[in-house]
Amino acid sequence: MDVLDAIRARRSVRRYKPTPIPEEALARILDAVRLAPSAKNLQPWRFILVRDPALRARVAVACVNQTFMAEAPVIIAACGLPEQAYGRMGRCMNSWPVDVTIAFEHLVLQAQVEGLGTCWIGAFYEEEVKALLGVPAEARVLALTPLGYPAESPAARPRKPLAEIVSKDRF
Amino acid sequence: MDVLDAIRARRSVRRYKPTPIPEEALARILDAVRLAPSAKNLQPWRFILVRDPALRARVAVACVNQTFMAEAPVIIAACGLPEQAYGRMGRCMNSWPVDVTIAFEHLVLQAQVEGLGTCWIGAFYEEEVKALLGVPAEARVLALTPLGYPAESPAARPRKPLAEIVSKDRF
Repeated sequence: MDVLDAIRARRSVRRYKPTPIPEEALARILDAVRLAPSAKNLQPWRFILVRDPALRARVAVACVNQTFMAEAPVIIAACGLPEQAYGRMGRCMNSWPVDVTIAFEHLVLQAQVEGLGTCWIGAFYEEEVKALLGVPAEARVLALTPLGYPAESPAARPRKPLAEIVSKDRF
Repeated sequence: MDVLDAIRARRSVRRYKPTPIPEEALARILDAVRLAPSAKNLQPWRFILVRDPALRARVAVACVNQTFMAEAPVIIAACGLPEQAYGRMGRCMNSWPVDVTIAFEHLVLQAQVEGLGTCWIGAFYEEEVKALLGVPAEARVLALTPLGYPAESPAARPRKPLAEIVSKDRF
């Protein structure tokens, strides 16, 4: 599937079938993650695949009770390692959120190619997710997503027109 | 071009031809940006296309003297608008770096499809870039990239093995 087709077809999916994910599809998705660029190629990330049903249910609760997440056979938690990342993006910002986001969006787009749904989950209690998944103090959780076959086909959501988001030579 | 093929083929390109970019290619690249998901669909971004040669040269200097950037016919500066973004990712983090990164990586991947090179530029003096491009105080610069036809074919860089970056049920 073409890049732009995948981008156009992607939706935030909030209902899932319990159908298992083929290992080959998962392998391609994780390869898309692994090959992501990162500042100074430091790859300061860890992706946790949560399959245990009881744990998935508890993670969904820690995501502000977004219980639909546990319908999917896998929940993925994307973690960043600030101490391993580039500390000076724009001379002041740690690159870990940028690095992990690139890898996460590769996951989302390759999932789309595989016919699998995802949903960027940014609403979660970070300390609760960390406790459930044994994430060490020095690591951060950027976002989570369910991964599974969609049980809904949401319509596209609106986007701003180009003229509002692109400008020439000056802001 | 397939998503995974684009991911596998992408490189950080640091030498460019002056060849202009076809308008249709640029339109598809900007559509990939425009369609990016963002927290609560707030789309808190502005992408500045810098074509003016003298301005490109000055921007490259503000990027810690990465003068190769100005070889490309366009430099793109990706800005975020924290006040328009979701303020509570993981209950504590503003989503703007995540939102802008997703849109930026869409740009990178669609550029690859079009045969165009990019290079995530995270080393820059943010205040200098803001002054050159008239970026208002409340906006931020996440990253920049040159955009143009590559004049080099860099080899792939190494990546960590999957076992180091993926784990099951726990970190």
